[in-house]
Amino acid sequence: MTFKIRAAKQEDCKEISRMIMELAVYEKMQDQVKISHKELERDGFCRNPCFECLVAEVSEEHKSLQGYTVVGYTLYFYTYSTWMGPSVFMEDLYVMPEYRGKGIGQGLMSKVAQVGKEKQCIRLQLSVLDWNTRSLDFYIKKGARDLTASEGWHSLRFDGEALDKLAAEAPKD
Amino acid sequence: MTFKIRAAKQEDCKEISRMIMELAVYEKMQDQVKISHKELERDGFCRNPCFECLVAEVSEEHKSLQGYTVVGYTLYFYTYSTWMGPSVFMEDLYVMPEYRGKGIGQGLMSKVAQVGKEKQCIRLQLSVLDWNTRSLDFYIKKGARDLTASEGWHSLRFDGEALDKLAAEAPKD
Repeated sequence: MTFKIRAAKQEDCKEISRMIMELAVYEKMQDQVKISHKELERDGFCRNPCFECLVAEVSEEHKSLQGYTVVGYTLYFYTYSTWMGPSVFMEDLYVMPEYRGKGIGQGLMSKVAQVGKEKQCIRLQLSVLDWNTRSLDFYIKKGARDLTASEGWHSLRFDGEALDKLAAEAPKD
Repeated sequence: MTFKIRAAKQEDCKEISRMIMELAVYEKMQDQVKISHKELERDGFCRNPCFECLVAEVSEEHKSLQGYTVVGYTLYFYTYSTWMGPSVFMEDLYVMPEYRGKGIGQGLMSKVAQVGKEKQCIRLQLSVLDWNTRSLDFYIKKGARDLTASEGWHSLRFDGEALDKLAAEAPKD
């Protein structure tokens, strides 16, 4: 089965939004999904987009049981290391279950690495849940280092009331 | 002692670069610092900057033993959650040791939260080393959640040869 990887277009956002939900269900965190294709269209396809996105597409003859031809995606953006300079962060990488094991995930990720390198990025980073050993093994096998395990990096987050409170304490100009 | 928090200017990059190295020494990773003020000037003060930066400044009469008046900084950028939308990531937060305990770190962080909220960000995220309990306690006390501890998120990185190899495997267009 052949597939094509291409930059996402605004009209792909409904499909991407569908797969974002599928990925969240797999990660057992679907209740945390608060945005829809409308926000993706607004935030990713404007003058200063918040992210870039690639989709994997199969031909009509290989469409999914539900009739989909867009069967995988990756969404990424650029970050910055004060030690190394520009980096790329892969927020999501997803391939529909019936299309796994065909090199689509690898193809999407490699394309992000290539795009990142063209923009002088010296790192590709991502986050994985520790129980998701299938994904963890995939990334490690491709050469990723688990910085949480090896160096002890933890991810912290302020949101909701904690973020409101923090912002309210900002010194006046 | 009063201090002022303001947006960094291009001419602050030498001071910021000095503090980036001080922070890396504290984190015992100074050998990983590969960029200087020149890269900061190029990447942060151009048409499409890779990051934003705030500095904390004290008056001349409170200058440091070495003569510095810029005594803290935070460097941050915008990321994107496919579940929640725009977020802000605080890459670095640093206050020189002799100026700690005076609310400067809190002031810098609150300002990032405020700026982020003005840009519709619903999260402020950051990474901390697990042995850095002083910082970890500070963030938790201010309301941050440790997502690595509570949800199991691990940070992964491709760089060097692993990144080169990955990029080289990208499917042809």
